[in-house]
Amino acid sequence: MPAEGEMRAPASEISVIAADLLGRLRTQAPRVHCITNTVAQVITANTLLAVGAVPSMTIAREEVGAFVESAAALLVNLGTLDAERRAASEAAIDTAQRAKIPWVLDPVFIDRSPARAAYARALLARKPAAIRLNRGEFLALSGTTGEPEAIVSFARAHGVAVGLTGATDVISDGERLVAIGNGDPLMQRVTALGCAESALVAACLAVERDAWRACAAALLIFGVAGEIAARRARGPGSFAVELLDALHELNRDALMAQARVS
Amino acid sequence: MPAEGEMRAPASEISVIAADLLGRLRTQAPRVHCITNTVAQVITANTLLAVGAVPSMTIAREEVGAFVESAAALLVNLGTLDAERRAASEAAIDTAQRAKIPWVLDPVFIDRSPARAAYARALLARKPAAIRLNRGEFLALSGTTGEPEAIVSFARAHGVAVGLTGATDVISDGERLVAIGNGDPLMQRVTALGCAESALVAACLAVERDAWRACAAALLIFGVAGEIAARRARGPGSFAVELLDALHELNRDALMAQARVS
Amino acid sequence: MPAEGEMRAPASEISVIAADLLGRLRTQAPRVHCITNTVAQVITANTLLAVGAVPSMTIAREEVGAFVESAAALLVNLGTLDAERRAASEAAIDTAQRAKIPWVLDPVFIDRSPARAAYARALLARKPAAIRLNRGEFLALSGTTGEPEAIVSFARAHGVAVGLTGATDVISDGERLVAIGNGDPLMQRVTALGCAESALVAACLAVERDAWRACAAALLIFGVAGEIAARRARGPGSFAVELLDALHELNRDALMAQARVS
Repeated sequence: MPAEGEMRAPASEISVIAADLLGRLRTQAPRVHCITNTVAQVITANTLLAVGAVPSMTIAREEVGAFVESAAALLVNLGTLDAERRAASEAAIDTAQRAKIPWVLDPVFIDRSPARAAYARALLARKPAAIRLNRGEFLALSGTTGEPEAIVSFARAHGVAVGLTGATDVISDGERLVAIGNGDPLMQRVTALGCAESALVAACLAVERDAWRACAAALLIFGVAGEIAARRARGPGSFAVELLDALHELNRDALMAQARVS
Repeated sequence: MPAEGEMRAPASEISVIAADLLGRLRTQAPRVHCITNTVAQVITANTLLAVGAVPSMTIAREEVGAFVESAAALLVNLGTLDAERRAASEAAIDTAQRAKIPWVLDPVFIDRSPARAAYARALLARKPAAIRLNRGEFLALSGTTGEPEAIVSFARAHGVAVGLTGATDVISDGERLVAIGNGDPLMQRVTALGCAESALVAACLAVERDAWRACAAALLIFGVAGEIAARRARGPGSFAVELLDALHELNRDALMAQARVS
Repeated sequence: MPAEGEMRAPASEISVIAADLLGRLRTQAPRVHCITNTVAQVITANTLLAVGAVPSMTIAREEVGAFVESAAALLVNLGTLDAERRAASEAAIDTAQRAKIPWVLDPVFIDRSPARAAYARALLARKPAAIRLNRGEFLALSGTTGEPEAIVSFARAHGVAVGLTGATDVISDGERLVAIGNGDPLMQRVTALGCAESALVAACLAVERDAWRACAAALLIFGVAGEIAARRARGPGSFAVELLDALHELNRDALMAQARVS
């Protein structure tokens, strides 16, 4: 394991990557298939559209294979984990692996449901490119708190890029590590923004196969847009509206000026 | 039955209760589990988050027990009543009764579906702490129009706090009665606001076990926030945004100044 | 087939029809039952409410017949096509045909799923009054590109009013033809607006049995409201809010002044 100083990326580097990936999203308009819960579907679809990607959302077992096969990336979110969704998730991951389509795992609320936590551990063995989660979910998945060293170890052990979001976001693939200080507390007052952020990680993976770069870029984009939105918002209702507008207009200058990366 | 004059609470008393419960919601951040229809999920979750509560929404039979067991209150909304949701609702109510968690019944659209009306009557026997509904739904459930005396009788007969919403909201637990004149016609032009209001009743029950106080406070909070939102809105799109902002910023002064309680 | 010049309606005629139907919607408040996907439900319900109609949305097999029987129009959207939804769609169409309630088909994303395309062809034989779709979906359904002559032929062959939306919308029932140039590119950056537009076609059918008039009016209303919203919006988040406000306030003067019909 390299010394921490060597592993850390400078703010300007991540901002440049993020601006570059935003440009690719707007040019390539990749389709991202999302298996996600019904609470998260609309904000997830609108987040993807705001950055130039194209969502598809069916969870019907009969269709999910065809939709994933022609997608550029896949998101599997464990919200509302019933038999139907498990079957859809497994069919989708089978297809993604066969077609070499990168996929992202969002183990939402596994800290509230032991059954979901067990299932998330099983899916982790199926090699997602990235996993986005919060501190409580990381604890439920790894058994350790979200200290940077624990995240690096976990990422290395499982061969996955980890994006742990919170007041500070931490991203590691076991080799590289970056911390992002952008965001706003209002993000906790709108439902499913974490789920939408995971979809943005999948969108970035659709245009950048280096999962650490994709994950760091996505979390920086979301955090900076969140700060812009918070400055314009009066409360959580207007915040959600402004967030989509900010994602849509976000550019290199704003990313370079506002990124707080260490 | 006491004379009506004795039963009525003064405006200032309900405003003080409402401000007090808002403070508890923001401090305690109770989790409210909501079994509700897919149209209502997002606005319901965002309404709860705007007042400081925390929503959970899974309806998967396999998970609902674990989620309810650790929640502070439960909402059962009858929208989209299929076999799956009936099973989830019954598992949730079983758990709530065992764990002594208060629950709210929203018999949405029972006036359009005799099967739902029959089911609502069966659930009423399972002792919800409160029931929130509109005039058409009350008629379908009780066979009587929503005159104050009929509401008082119904509440007493079933041992439930009734919150009947409309141009004037009426709340009774069979002993006490209050009428609230706040609100705005734009509330009828945004889908699922009644469902969201029922979730707010559940949130207030999570921090106040006197169901009449919880129900009256929730309806006053929602009505005053609706009036604030209507003054700022241009139409139903901006109204929904402003309503969440107004719920988030609502305070004792606004409640005291604007409550129309009799 | 008449010469194209004879078939085309002047802008002012369509604007007058649209203003007239908006007036009927606000006066009659028809209920429109929508079988649509979970991503589209909220914006669809709010679009209907903004123009004065009343949505219902249950897809439970046990209930759908009763809800359709008392509705004024039906929408069948093929998003998320699983066994449950197929059964609900078929029960709904059976009821609509028996009760002579007009219905609209939205064959969403059939260009991405051969199974959906085959199903859409089967439903077309069950005589929807209108079908709303985009160019890719029309290609998947008809095997021809969306040139006006192809649309007219298709509409005549199947006895259906076709509303093909895109940069220019084209509406034909096989006899009459109109092209509408209103709208804004931001409409592509908000999820499910096409689905919501199909529900508006159904709402117009509820108050006007001439399917070509209903379809043309709905697409003009949506396009003009979209332009008004785009002038007020900063990005896709505020656009969705402004669209609902614009639909709510839309009137004859705005329709007459802004319609681009040829």
